[in-house]
Amino acid sequence: MADPGTFAEPPLSGYRQHMEIRALLRDEQSLYQHVQVLDTAPFGRMLVLDDAVQTTIADEAAYHEMLVHVPMLAHPAPRQVLIVGGGDGGTLRRVLQHPIQRVVQVEIDEAVIRLSREFLPEISAGAYDDPRADVIVGDGVAYLETQSAAFDVVLIDSTDPVGPAEGLFTTDFYQTVRRALRPGGLMASHCGSPVLMADGWLRTVSTLEGVFGIVQPYLAYVPAYPGGLWGMVAASESCSAHRPDPYRLSQLAGDLDELSYYTPDVHMASFALPATLGRRQPLFPIVAAEPSGVA
Amino acid sequence: MADPGTFAEPPLSGYRQHMEIRALLRDEQSLYQHVQVLDTAPFGRMLVLDDAVQTTIADEAAYHEMLVHVPMLAHPAPRQVLIVGGGDGGTLRRVLQHPIQRVVQVEIDEAVIRLSREFLPEISAGAYDDPRADVIVGDGVAYLETQSAAFDVVLIDSTDPVGPAEGLFTTDFYQTVRRALRPGGLMASHCGSPVLMADGWLRTVSTLEGVFGIVQPYLAYVPAYPGGLWGMVAASESCSAHRPDPYRLSQLAGDLDELSYYTPDVHMASFALPATLGRRQPLFPIVAAEPSGVA
Repeated sequence: MADPGTFAEPPLSGYRQHMEIRALLRDEQSLYQHVQVLDTAPFGRMLVLDDAVQTTIADEAAYHEMLVHVPMLAHPAPRQVLIVGGGDGGTLRRVLQHPIQRVVQVEIDEAVIRLSREFLPEISAGAYDDPRADVIVGDGVAYLETQSAAFDVVLIDSTDPVGPAEGLFTTDFYQTVRRALRPGGLMASHCGSPVLMADGWLRTVSTLEGVFGIVQPYLAYVPAYPGGLWGMVAASESCSAHRPDPYRLSQLAGDLDELSYYTPDVHMASFALPATLGRRQPLFPIVAAEPSGVA
Repeated sequence: MADPGTFAEPPLSGYRQHMEIRALLRDEQSLYQHVQVLDTAPFGRMLVLDDAVQTTIADEAAYHEMLVHVPMLAHPAPRQVLIVGGGDGGTLRRVLQHPIQRVVQVEIDEAVIRLSREFLPEISAGAYDDPRADVIVGDGVAYLETQSAAFDVVLIDSTDPVGPAEGLFTTDFYQTVRRALRPGGLMASHCGSPVLMADGWLRTVSTLEGVFGIVQPYLAYVPAYPGGLWGMVAASESCSAHRPDPYRLSQLAGDLDELSYYTPDVHMASFALPATLGRRQPLFPIVAAEPSGVA
């Protein structure tokens, strides 16, 4: 942290978001990573893994609704769902709003589940107690290698492609995901900031294009993440994620007015990439290519 | 500035963007405001007025293409255009890409024009030398009061609604704009961050709704502005801004591949508001309502 009262991720290209901290609620070294829960002034309670913001009370809905409802409502009948990562439970909770039979979640770090349930209970909101949820603490890559044509939707809700999640952004991994999908199935993953991590965004999209026939990047605005605009991507052999199935929308549990970010129009709009990104160029000509020492 | 090597706007709700500075190119007190030109690591050269980021080399295209091309391509035949503010010249340049007869720009502060032309010449890119441009250094409110049914499109490209620009966000001013529009005309304005300035966003949209029959908020992503997501709004008595006129698109001077941000799909997508904003609520439940002392 920059000083005791401020949290800031390591700088990217000379850019850094500072957030006023009201309290450090937990600081723990797990088997895999440094886990912190902070109470921030702008976004409320926030989960941080290895100095990277994972989720906050204020904006978790934008990330989770867009990662989940876009692929889940594009698929005509998702029954079997897999989540890789997602320990805070926000993805699990949104998957369970759909009329599924079973969702398997494979999260490598029990500390993320435990501390999220203790300090960020609004995010999972009881999802871990749902009988349709099968939560495994383990390695998502190893789990997926045992699966074949098993899932309608696979959601990659991991940390960035460094550290524990590095193996979740490779050609090998995406081939494993493809094999684990049932016919007509699709996957979705976040793929970083197209502004401050443009190389990573371009690489992830390109890697997926080498594996899947249909690769559709989309965007969501998640202000606690560096730069605010966040990349997600859907991939499939036969199912386009561009539009929600109107029938499926009516099946979503709960009032549509309970949604914070997702609407059918936002779903379709999220695939309209700014001109440079559509040409597979970085969104903006960020000047400093390397991390720098900005305070 | 937080320290000599860093620029950061005053904090909003305990949130603050820090940018590494490579050089302070100019620091001047004009008749109206404190004008700075900085060379930043992430966004290149940047214009700052009274500590607020106005534009940068890296992301000016997102702001200017969306403020200009959305209303200009929605209007079926804009010939007479007015810009209030816009001293950096980026709006003027985009207006001149259209087959207009005349554009009047009324900018209150000559220092903004002069320093932008000296230090940020890529932004206006010769627009100030175009014979169709009539540039007036003066008060946009007073100018508009002399105009009646004179303009097809009026663009408000000002600072935020404090200081010199305060009078550009009132019912009285919008009524003056409405009188200055020709039949079928429309106006567009920025209206701040729907995240960190949610009250201002809601107030501006609501004020416009009290004056115009058609009020259509839209969004653009401009990372150098606090929070990154930026509000714009189109207003008219009879012209919807939702879609570009296909014929008008073909009239845009220059290759469409020279656009950085705007595409016809992005135009239409920019009106898809996240669910909370669509309900005229703040986009996210930002916790600290008041500016705080974050470093």
